[in-house]
Amino acid sequence: MKRSFDVDSILKTLRSVFPTDKDFISLHEPQFSGNEWNYVKECLDTGWVSSVGKYVDKFEQQLAQYTGVKRAVAVVNGTSALHICLRLAGVSYDDEVLMPAMTFVATANAVKYCGAIPHFVDSEEKTLGVDPRKLSTYLAEIADVSSKGCINQLTGRRLKALIAVHTFGHPVDLSSLSELCNNYNIALIEDAAESVGSFYKEKHTGNWGLVSAISFNGNKIITTGGGGAILTNSEEIGALAKHITTTAKLPHKWAFNHDMVGYNYRMPNINAALGCAQIEQLPVFLKEKRKLAERYQFAFRRMEGISLFKEPVFSKSNYWLNTILLDKDYADGRDMLVEVTNNNGIMTRPPWTLMHKLPMFKKCLHMDLTVSEDLEKRLISIPSSASLGVMDANV
Amino acid sequence: MKRSFDVDSILKTLRSVFPTDKDFISLHEPQFSGNEWNYVKECLDTGWVSSVGKYVDKFEQQLAQYTGVKRAVAVVNGTSALHICLRLAGVSYDDEVLMPAMTFVATANAVKYCGAIPHFVDSEEKTLGVDPRKLSTYLAEIADVSSKGCINQLTGRRLKALIAVHTFGHPVDLSSLSELCNNYNIALIEDAAESVGSFYKEKHTGNWGLVSAISFNGNKIITTGGGGAILTNSEEIGALAKHITTTAKLPHKWAFNHDMVGYNYRMPNINAALGCAQIEQLPVFLKEKRKLAERYQFAFRRMEGISLFKEPVFSKSNYWLNTILLDKDYADGRDMLVEVTNNNGIMTRPPWTLMHKLPMFKKCLHMDLTVSEDLEKRLISIPSSASLGVMDANV
Repeated sequence: MKRSFDVDSILKTLRSVFPTDKDFISLHEPQFSGNEWNYVKECLDTGWVSSVGKYVDKFEQQLAQYTGVKRAVAVVNGTSALHICLRLAGVSYDDEVLMPAMTFVATANAVKYCGAIPHFVDSEEKTLGVDPRKLSTYLAEIADVSSKGCINQLTGRRLKALIAVHTFGHPVDLSSLSELCNNYNIALIEDAAESVGSFYKEKHTGNWGLVSAISFNGNKIITTGGGGAILTNSEEIGALAKHITTTAKLPHKWAFNHDMVGYNYRMPNINAALGCAQIEQLPVFLKEKRKLAERYQFAFRRMEGISLFKEPVFSKSNYWLNTILLDKDYADGRDMLVEVTNNNGIMTRPPWTLMHKLPMFKKCLHMDLTVSEDLEKRLISIPSSASLGVMDANV
Repeated sequence: MKRSFDVDSILKTLRSVFPTDKDFISLHEPQFSGNEWNYVKECLDTGWVSSVGKYVDKFEQQLAQYTGVKRAVAVVNGTSALHICLRLAGVSYDDEVLMPAMTFVATANAVKYCGAIPHFVDSEEKTLGVDPRKLSTYLAEIADVSSKGCINQLTGRRLKALIAVHTFGHPVDLSSLSELCNNYNIALIEDAAESVGSFYKEKHTGNWGLVSAISFNGNKIITTGGGGAILTNSEEIGALAKHITTTAKLPHKWAFNHDMVGYNYRMPNINAALGCAQIEQLPVFLKEKRKLAERYQFAFRRMEGISLFKEPVFSKSNYWLNTILLDKDYADGRDMLVEVTNNNGIMTRPPWTLMHKLPMFKKCLHMDLTVSEDLEKRLISIPSSASLGVMDANV
């Protein structure tokens, strides 16, 4: 039975969670309350803003330490990190790469940069990420593991990798997906762009993939302006990640020699300086964001037709974006609710249009996407800045 | 007849040009003597460091105004600018792209990103860039203009574009190359990475190509940490450049729809803030660098075996990197001179290894490269920071 919301009540409830005078509450704003000024000013004072300077090394060390991986390589953004992850996983021309249909377009674009083909799979409601059981059934139908790797019998192409996306920061079922990828000789890549600060079974996301990508775009939990990083637990892959993202130049005092087609993806020192200051504050941001998530859950606990998405079992999520899950009967009201909240100074957003519906990916393969199609209609992301968690009123 | 240098005399002459106590004189250092801190601080204070904020728009307007093009689009670096220039010029899989063998590796890498094939051409001594007369003779031999475009008769592939590089900031012979490209239906792309502030026939470099790429890397005349821009005199191409470098997202208050495979190449606001401050000082930097070039030329006027490269006719160069040209008899001494100067605290550098000698481009096509091979042995770039031009001593 189709039902409709009490919109005024929803607006009132949302406002009760962040009592502020602001005309407009963004979805996610950065917060510069630490050493940002000091570090950035030092870059300007020393002239070290670009590829020379200590902050890139320092930021990479801090990232590796925080996430617990062996090597982190800082790059210009999450998209370039994903691109390089795919290259490092051996994805090449005409390979197929499994990925959720419900993701930001960068995941699919990065596959195209390699000349490879996205192959879209379904998500599950309990993680908002790839459903390992449904994927297992699908692979049993279409995949054949041979000496050439895992072959899609329908196309004859290699299924080279799976990109598992931690949607809105919530960890996907990494244990099951790792095992599945292992069984099928498919490289697991984590798109951890949104999940900095999210843990699965007490290990930081990004530790389960052969390589993983994170993002420090301005809307993320910590930001470097634009930025990202590649994470890996292989020293060898880490060294190659550094080499290939810095034009593949061979070390020499003055000669310019390069040994492969490389990329200019290195994060500038001034952006890394920002990152060093931001990561120092990450534990505080996580606490504030968790408080906000709890407040949302409490506020909406008796609201008909709406529940708040909660971190999956085995996970401690960063709650990057708090997200409303509409009951199925209320799904028709999604666009109206998004429209009204935005018009009333509260920024909200439905999920990304599913990838297989975009014109450039329409011809790509996909499995049954019933759950993704359903989730697309029922999810609404709501304001989630760490600063909104600081306020202790009205709870 | 082979001859050798009086190394002590060269060291003494170099030192006379920049009398400073510094232990090490870099090849090119940035200078932050303007509004850098004010603008960057404003980004931090407002939280606008990333894809939201006014500095990207402002910097693009300043760039368009300074260079005289219709549209400038700021991106993460010069390599990404070149990549997009090639895409905008219609370069696609299996096309051939003409370019000098004597260039930085990014020029050739960007072609590979498009799945296209670099085709290396020779340079001339008077500009250090592509020799239009030699290229004309070569095209007359191999090229055939048909309805499908300009076809290389040796390979059957399309010769889609020519990348003309303004080496060390010195403008190439744009009139002749424009005419040649026009005659053969080959798109002209200017790699103006090094030539911000350089003019050819009183128009800024970047105005002659269908699209052009510039760079604001830390070693360039003005810097944004990492950064670059695409220049074009076509409003339509400019709009597409903006669209494709910002994930090809269709404008909408909250929906995420994209209509083509796009890139995440947008320059972050904090880097653009730096750019706004730097471009304000560009006229001063140009004056200082010209003074330095004059001082080098005066100091070395009677030095045997060495001359200083001078801006080509019809050009006003930014003298990004001052460059020594060894007489042919003295070419054997290049490595020794580079070694001794670097060991004595004066950074110098030979040109990049020619592209066709790098392992990943060894199989690419090339014409006779006699002049490039000769120049590679005879060129040495010497310290060229604008700040070195300020000092008025010893001249």
